[in-house]
Amino acid sequence: MAHIPAPDSVFIPAEKLRSFMESIFITLGLSVENARITTDVLLEADLRGIDTHGVGRLSIYVDRLRSGQQNPEAPLTTVSDAPGTALLDGGAGMGQVVAAQAMEIAMEKAAETGIGGIAVRNSSHFGFAGYFPLMAAEKGMMGMAVTNARPSICPTFGTEPMLGTNPIAFAAPTDLEFPFLFDAATSIIQRGTVELYDRLHLSVPEGLVVGESGETLTSPASILEGMVRGEASLLPLGGRGEESGGHKGYGLAVMVEILSAALQNGPYLKHVTGVGLGHFFLAIDISKFLPVETFKSVAGAILRDLQNSRKECGRDRIFVPGEKEFLIRRERMESGIPLPPDFLLKLDEMAAEVGVKPLAR
Amino acid sequence: MAHIPAPDSVFIPAEKLRSFMESIFITLGLSVENARITTDVLLEADLRGIDTHGVGRLSIYVDRLRSGQQNPEAPLTTVSDAPGTALLDGGAGMGQVVAAQAMEIAMEKAAETGIGGIAVRNSSHFGFAGYFPLMAAEKGMMGMAVTNARPSICPTFGTEPMLGTNPIAFAAPTDLEFPFLFDAATSIIQRGTVELYDRLHLSVPEGLVVGESGETLTSPASILEGMVRGEASLLPLGGRGEESGGHKGYGLAVMVEILSAALQNGPYLKHVTGVGLGHFFLAIDISKFLPVETFKSVAGAILRDLQNSRKECGRDRIFVPGEKEFLIRRERMESGIPLPPDFLLKLDEMAAEVGVKPLAR
Repeated sequence: MAHIPAPDSVFIPAEKLRSFMESIFITLGLSVENARITTDVLLEADLRGIDTHGVGRLSIYVDRLRSGQQNPEAPLTTVSDAPGTALLDGGAGMGQVVAAQAMEIAMEKAAETGIGGIAVRNSSHFGFAGYFPLMAAEKGMMGMAVTNARPSICPTFGTEPMLGTNPIAFAAPTDLEFPFLFDAATSIIQRGTVELYDRLHLSVPEGLVVGESGETLTSPASILEGMVRGEASLLPLGGRGEESGGHKGYGLAVMVEILSAALQNGPYLKHVTGVGLGHFFLAIDISKFLPVETFKSVAGAILRDLQNSRKECGRDRIFVPGEKEFLIRRERMESGIPLPPDFLLKLDEMAAEVGVKPLAR
Repeated sequence: MAHIPAPDSVFIPAEKLRSFMESIFITLGLSVENARITTDVLLEADLRGIDTHGVGRLSIYVDRLRSGQQNPEAPLTTVSDAPGTALLDGGAGMGQVVAAQAMEIAMEKAAETGIGGIAVRNSSHFGFAGYFPLMAAEKGMMGMAVTNARPSICPTFGTEPMLGTNPIAFAAPTDLEFPFLFDAATSIIQRGTVELYDRLHLSVPEGLVVGESGETLTSPASILEGMVRGEASLLPLGGRGEESGGHKGYGLAVMVEILSAALQNGPYLKHVTGVGLGHFFLAIDISKFLPVETFKSVAGAILRDLQNSRKECGRDRIFVPGEKEFLIRRERMESGIPLPPDFLLKLDEMAAEVGVKPLAR
């Protein structure tokens, strides 16, 4: 539901939003190329309806760049290297740039050895996680990206926010109009969804968030406050306890934490702040296994069979992972990206502060 | 709850059970080495309380070997090969043997390039998925194993069993007494858990299994019947619909299906039968990134911090993935493996048919 726009939204053409964001990033010290990458990651989230990871986060990056918390032009350095792997240091640079470069290196290694695995330390929030595996899918490879994040999920039987929403993103090419794309936090919902419930004046459904004793919390406002104070925790995928599989979502979140923190000897769990994040990227060169066209036709057949399978009463459509985002992207390339008027005012205030032309409307 | 033994269980020492199973496999045509591997995978499940994947499945393997559905001594052949990857053909051999060999090759490749990825076609049920990544963790590597399986999970908004329980298993070494081990089906529960509810005369909780219209099913007996007829489906991790994240479990199951079937051009979804399964294995050589001891201490610190975090009212302990299985294994190494008396009778009938000495008690 992250893509439900506010009813009075103004539709901004994607290319206008792109130029605006690029100008801001260039003014704040990014090279043209790095501004292009950072903007593209944000814009691709907006285009796909992943509104929690698009231009809505611009102010966070602007604040960090202005305060010097993030280095706009940090060089990516190599800590260790092998034919199929590397550990890179992001130098507290822009997460999007660091991640895109790391994924490129994973793909180069995969093109040589069949598979590339890149660990990254000293990075920052990289935005829409699916962007990076999609880079691989566009080149006929499979890709995966994981990252840790500031703590918000409690372990099974716990009530303290310990693990980040620790997303797993995975993409694979298909012979459909769009690639397979799985991109999900290992919690049931994430903070942005709570904010959306708040904006829509809706309660958060029971069983998604718990308080200090493990009681379910449903008021978005008190959840958001509780999250800041470390008193409210997002439940892992599968929910509370073990009966409905909550220990599985918890286990996946720990797996991501180990891949993101232990493989780079970086901050973990409560030691994770906005900067100093770790990531792990995987690229698999399908052509080293079998012809890419064969792979695509089997992957496509899997998705088509799922679409055509028996539906619940009252449902006329089954979606496959990546399909909804593809449909929203196609629509928004035409209609523009819906943004609430009050948010547009804030964007223009930010532009004035930074010294960039306001978003032309 | 898969490890709750029947109250009148007889405890069989692990080594007795090992000799018994090895004798059966050797009599049915497996080499001593292949009988050793197959037995070890089954026994390690029994020792860890994963009773759905241990000696309880022996009769299935025996039936398949006697009917010629599985080739006891199939050679593992290489379809394609690169420095970090390979596609192997299991020749309809024993899944456990095929998988252990594939994982060994993944580890050999990882030792060279840093990371190894092995796809396998034409294999069969490989048993306890966690066994194979644990092989990597024992050698100071991270390991992952996934496999497809006969259809039982419906997609989100669907009611037809399309996807296998498609497990993901992942292990990493730590400085605790046990490695991190995540090993979970991408459904909430699996068939074996329904059988256990049946044996314990309990209802299956609501929201785990659905019927043809999407209605929740709770009677274990009718669920088991419905699964055979394709009318009952296991829900993906996260449950029905999208509100509690069911689309995430569904997406993970599809990811596993693509890795298992598309990368080897093999049977997928409803085309999957007991034989002809596909697997994918990953090994990551930690020492190519940083010293293994450093990794282990960070991974261990992550797990310790989780254990020590704030607990729900009425809970005095938080477990980390792999811990419960470790504790049960330690107990069962002492006590033996609990098996119901009627099951032991069946084992001895099977032994008599095959021409092997009964399990000495």
